[in-house]
Amino acid sequence: MSKTSDNKLTKTDIQTLSNLTGLADLVVKQANKKHTPAIDIPIRALSNISFNERKRIIEMGRRTSQRQLFNLSQAKSFMQTMLVTSGVKQLIDQGKTTSIRGLFYLLKHTIPGVKEETFDEQADCDPIIEDCEVLLNSLREELHLYAQKRGDMVGEIQIIDSGDEIDCSRMGSGGYGVPSIVEPDVIQFKKCNAKFILHVEKDTVWQRFNEDKFWKKHHCILTHGAGQPPRGVRRLLYRMHHELNLPIFCLLDNDPWGYYIYSVIKQGSINLAFESQRMAIPEAKYIGLRSVDFAKCKLSDSVKITLNEQDKKRAKQIAEYPWFKKKKAWQKEIATMLENGFKLEVEALTNRDISFVTEKYVPERLDEGNFLD
Amino acid sequence: MSKTSDNKLTKTDIQTLSNLTGLADLVVKQANKKHTPAIDIPIRALSNISFNERKRIIEMGRRTSQRQLFNLSQAKSFMQTMLVTSGVKQLIDQGKTTSIRGLFYLLKHTIPGVKEETFDEQADCDPIIEDCEVLLNSLREELHLYAQKRGDMVGEIQIIDSGDEIDCSRMGSGGYGVPSIVEPDVIQFKKCNAKFILHVEKDTVWQRFNEDKFWKKHHCILTHGAGQPPRGVRRLLYRMHHELNLPIFCLLDNDPWGYYIYSVIKQGSINLAFESQRMAIPEAKYIGLRSVDFAKCKLSDSVKITLNEQDKKRAKQIAEYPWFKKKKAWQKEIATMLENGFKLEVEALTNRDISFVTEKYVPERLDEGNFLD
Repeated sequence: MSKTSDNKLTKTDIQTLSNLTGLADLVVKQANKKHTPAIDIPIRALSNISFNERKRIIEMGRRTSQRQLFNLSQAKSFMQTMLVTSGVKQLIDQGKTTSIRGLFYLLKHTIPGVKEETFDEQADCDPIIEDCEVLLNSLREELHLYAQKRGDMVGEIQIIDSGDEIDCSRMGSGGYGVPSIVEPDVIQFKKCNAKFILHVEKDTVWQRFNEDKFWKKHHCILTHGAGQPPRGVRRLLYRMHHELNLPIFCLLDNDPWGYYIYSVIKQGSINLAFESQRMAIPEAKYIGLRSVDFAKCKLSDSVKITLNEQDKKRAKQIAEYPWFKKKKAWQKEIATMLENGFKLEVEALTNRDISFVTEKYVPERLDEGNFLD
Repeated sequence: MSKTSDNKLTKTDIQTLSNLTGLADLVVKQANKKHTPAIDIPIRALSNISFNERKRIIEMGRRTSQRQLFNLSQAKSFMQTMLVTSGVKQLIDQGKTTSIRGLFYLLKHTIPGVKEETFDEQADCDPIIEDCEVLLNSLREELHLYAQKRGDMVGEIQIIDSGDEIDCSRMGSGGYGVPSIVEPDVIQFKKCNAKFILHVEKDTVWQRFNEDKFWKKHHCILTHGAGQPPRGVRRLLYRMHHELNLPIFCLLDNDPWGYYIYSVIKQGSINLAFESQRMAIPEAKYIGLRSVDFAKCKLSDSVKITLNEQDKKRAKQIAEYPWFKKKKAWQKEIATMLENGFKLEVEALTNRDISFVTEKYVPERLDEGNFLD
């Protein structure tokens, strides 16, 4: 680790490097003993995923599969796994981060002697990165890899980001652009007067709430994730919820996509079950539009959007998710949508008034404690 | 205008309201004279667009078409035009802004007596909004309509956004999220030490530049637009370029999409030619990857991405754009790409080193004044 001496390693870096070295040592040891170098990779398939009823998150099981060097069908992915771990080590040693696209280019080369590429496409590299996450028990961000950066935050919180103090109550109409990596060594919470977090689906709805200074009137933090929130936003919500004890309310569209966004925020993603333990927020509440709101809010027929076949199929699938399956309120919600035959966007409330959503809809539901769990 | 008395109108608002009232008066006057109410709408089609060689921007011509109330094929769009203008007046009166989706819902209703909707879909509303922009000689933002919000900014500039002072050199890893409306009544420039603006295509590349504190070392402003920059970012670049005399360099991928992003930033968009005069930056320079860089930067074959048929077609179309047509360097650039048969992403430079792009590629080209115009 002499190369790293000029670079400030965080505690997490030191742990990750130790796991990396452990992995490398294992392979070397096997080779020295003239055994076939092999590593046990946790299986990232639906068959190895379950819903933990106690913790209320999606979890990976303990099943693993072996990846061997001297196996025709596994040799390439074995080599790719070693490559990714060496790339990650290089990033940590240099104290730098990059995108998964950047890592792909960093590691892509023609293997000498043969005409084969280490990785042909990004799609060859991504699953190996995910393997390494579970193998090293690290979030991608801890491997110095960042994802796309989307989403903004304003509200009654002061944070420190890379040494800069940022007062999210003085961020104008633009807001603080949530970074992709929000781990404690990058972001610290300095002061928080907020009583809760309102997370909205779309940037356009967020702009309405920010213009009406909703967060000031209701002492909260206001975030959006431009659709399905990216990893940085999910992780930041998780940290604020756990470290600052802030309840989270999600204002989403009344459609299967809105349900799904809620499901991912709350229980974790099925594809990346490994990260649920540090991303999922089982206490998150759904304050989004509901199928009963059409009548309750006296909306006009004009705002209905007819469900298409895909919507109906998705709604039925979501109703079967174990974490929705046992909840009467959710079963009723989804059944009502299917019965109605239409979906509703949050913006449909504009039909009542431009600020109906910020001045009536959300405040009333917060007062009444009227939301889905 | 009595309704507006409790709301602070800006100079622009007063001008827009006056244009709106003028339009309404015209219609009323025609009706009182028992003439057919009609308005002249500038034609927003390719046939009425040209490249102004002196100003070096795409411009709309002066041709208009009449839209009449008592004309079976025009009555609905006449009514829709009146509706959109009345919606805009309501927004200005209330001192609020909304998204084009919000305006759509605000105005959508079933016309009494008939079973017809004012607007069936968003796609019916959008062109009418664009008509109103040209009709009222206003940018959409001046009609209190915001677009999607994307893109971030850091660097040596202090701005005031809605009364909040924001120091973009103290914005950590996240940055200031550029709002959709950046007109002078929202955003003012307080202090600027930057010597130029580096605009990069992707948020992931922006993260690399921000982490390496490129803007600090080179005294600049660093922006991205998450692909094709949204209106807010384009308008902010325009304002910073013109009001602060800052040159703009665009770091884009070496592919037809990168060329096209440059074309829109520099000369304006073909679809929305009307806005070029307040969005296009003819002095912008292209510092993005070039087809000669493959050899020049000693990149490995591994980073080549083969051009597909669509790429080739787009490249040829772009070469024919009047503003590229007469430029030898651009003709050579595009011809070389087609000859090479491959494209290159900015991230391909990672193949040399993680920070090659921030420490070598861009600084060298800035020093040499080596870019395309």
